[in-house]
Amino acid sequence: MTPDVIAAAEARIRPFLRRTPLLESPQLNALAGRRVLVKAECLQHTGSFKYRGAKSAVTAIAAEGGCSGIIAYSSGNHAQGVARAAQEAGLPAVIVMPSDAPRAKVEGTRAYGAEVVLYDRWKESREEIGAHLAATRDLRLVRPYDEPEVIAGQGTCGLELAEQARAAGVTTGQVLVCCGGGGLTSGIALALEQQAPGLCVRPVEPEAFDDVTRSLAAGKILGNAPGGTSICDAIVTPQPGDLTFPILHRLCGPGLTVSDAEALTAMAVALRHLKIVVEPGGAVALAAALHRSDALGSDPVIAVATGGNADPDILAHAVAAIP
Amino acid sequence: MTPDVIAAAEARIRPFLRRTPLLESPQLNALAGRRVLVKAECLQHTGSFKYRGAKSAVTAIAAEGGCSGIIAYSSGNHAQGVARAAQEAGLPAVIVMPSDAPRAKVEGTRAYGAEVVLYDRWKESREEIGAHLAATRDLRLVRPYDEPEVIAGQGTCGLELAEQARAAGVTTGQVLVCCGGGGLTSGIALALEQQAPGLCVRPVEPEAFDDVTRSLAAGKILGNAPGGTSICDAIVTPQPGDLTFPILHRLCGPGLTVSDAEALTAMAVALRHLKIVVEPGGAVALAAALHRSDALGSDPVIAVATGGNADPDILAHAVAAIP
Repeated sequence: MTPDVIAAAEARIRPFLRRTPLLESPQLNALAGRRVLVKAECLQHTGSFKYRGAKSAVTAIAAEGGCSGIIAYSSGNHAQGVARAAQEAGLPAVIVMPSDAPRAKVEGTRAYGAEVVLYDRWKESREEIGAHLAATRDLRLVRPYDEPEVIAGQGTCGLELAEQARAAGVTTGQVLVCCGGGGLTSGIALALEQQAPGLCVRPVEPEAFDDVTRSLAAGKILGNAPGGTSICDAIVTPQPGDLTFPILHRLCGPGLTVSDAEALTAMAVALRHLKIVVEPGGAVALAAALHRSDALGSDPVIAVATGGNADPDILAHAVAAIP
Repeated sequence: MTPDVIAAAEARIRPFLRRTPLLESPQLNALAGRRVLVKAECLQHTGSFKYRGAKSAVTAIAAEGGCSGIIAYSSGNHAQGVARAAQEAGLPAVIVMPSDAPRAKVEGTRAYGAEVVLYDRWKESREEIGAHLAATRDLRLVRPYDEPEVIAGQGTCGLELAEQARAAGVTTGQVLVCCGGGGLTSGIALALEQQAPGLCVRPVEPEAFDDVTRSLAAGKILGNAPGGTSICDAIVTPQPGDLTFPILHRLCGPGLTVSDAEALTAMAVALRHLKIVVEPGGAVALAAALHRSDALGSDPVIAVATGGNADPDILAHAVAAIP
């Protein structure tokens, strides 16, 4: 993966992307004890950054031609990104989703015209279901993170962020990124390596899914112990990707973890002070900015609010947590 | 009021403003049965468009010099806008607020360093309290809407909107604006008259505070009957302003009204599909886009979501209204 790949994706998909704002609030700064800027990717099309990578991958596939449609598996944000990108390209999309995915995400995916295939994530393998459907129906698989064009598309978020941070007077500091398989984290890290070398990327995970944090510390890919749970459905992936991990290892600082309660508090702060809806998995970076101050040095911090597709019940809990 | 005044305000305050995004969602379009673009002024500094007018007025006063500080009266959004603009200018600010203003707005105003003077809006006159304080403490009054520099500042929202609508391919249609005293509505109407003449401004009000709608129909300023109530605290003004009404009368289409329940539904739709927090008074324009389709012709509609400073209890009601 080279910066050229991100630039090529950027040139191809820029007209379709929303340039999401970098928000700041004096009240939030006071709470965090430092400047905290929040990249509001929850305002991206489909409600998360995933549209960037999906648009990059699907436009590359459409340009090549030679398949009957797209297939993806996802707990819901990659699903919606791929569904919308496929719809825009005039390609049918089949999305394999866990039957306990948030309702808002299943409905959103169907709203973008995709066929949703539900599976039991405790008993069935989404990879097997996906491979079978891909083979029998001539569909091209777009993996959620371990796919060069997806990483390149997520990197466009880093290009914007570098520019916006500079405009806000921030050239050194930490960029906290909510991290599942590492597609966005590695894409942003690659973009910043070239465009804003004073900004250091730090992956942030839920406590029970700290595979990236432990893998970075060990210098090799480690998985999560089975049986962990978290409200952060978007980022409860089993282990870092084979493509993403070497990038994370080369470019990122140590990982950080937060509790579900801290993610919920960050959702409340985002509602109250930034006027944005962030889902639990999209709030862990802001949660780290609020609750892991000791690990962040003295510079300003940029937190990427990666998605906003929260179900009403979890949103109600976040509203109840507004101080 | 000429377009030059808006251009001058724009030149002075542009570097301090947030360029708020014009959001769109296929799901929202499907609900409304047409394209609905939402100008997310809830993401403006201080959580509402009011910062634009306040920044315009306060920078003009600061450039003149010769006063010891700023005074304003407001239910809360103008309060926060003036407080922040005064703080940035290094001027003390005194804000007269009703004792039943939303807690988030009182706290926000204090957080921007202003002295808050509470009054009983059923028994006392904010104008009298303000005039007394202004005289005894050498403070300059910044009225919430009937003030040329405030109207000019709000007009900068119209300049952005004209550009963003054009980029989104919308050159004819209706622009729905949540309307209290008419400062934002007249400012946007003036800006669009020059920059986007195919876009027609329509003021939107709560049913019990339909003074602008009735005044436009009658061709003269009419007040609201006493005793009306609404959850839309930001726009429950008594009557159109002496400066704003002639502009509204010359440039705007007929007014529209919505119920409190419709405003609450619009808040729910904004949370669900746009991932933004809109307060009741900031949601009436979107509510009209959803519930007054018959009155809006067949073109796309742009709704200005004017503010997002909602108290947690009303936000909880909105979350409960998410379908």
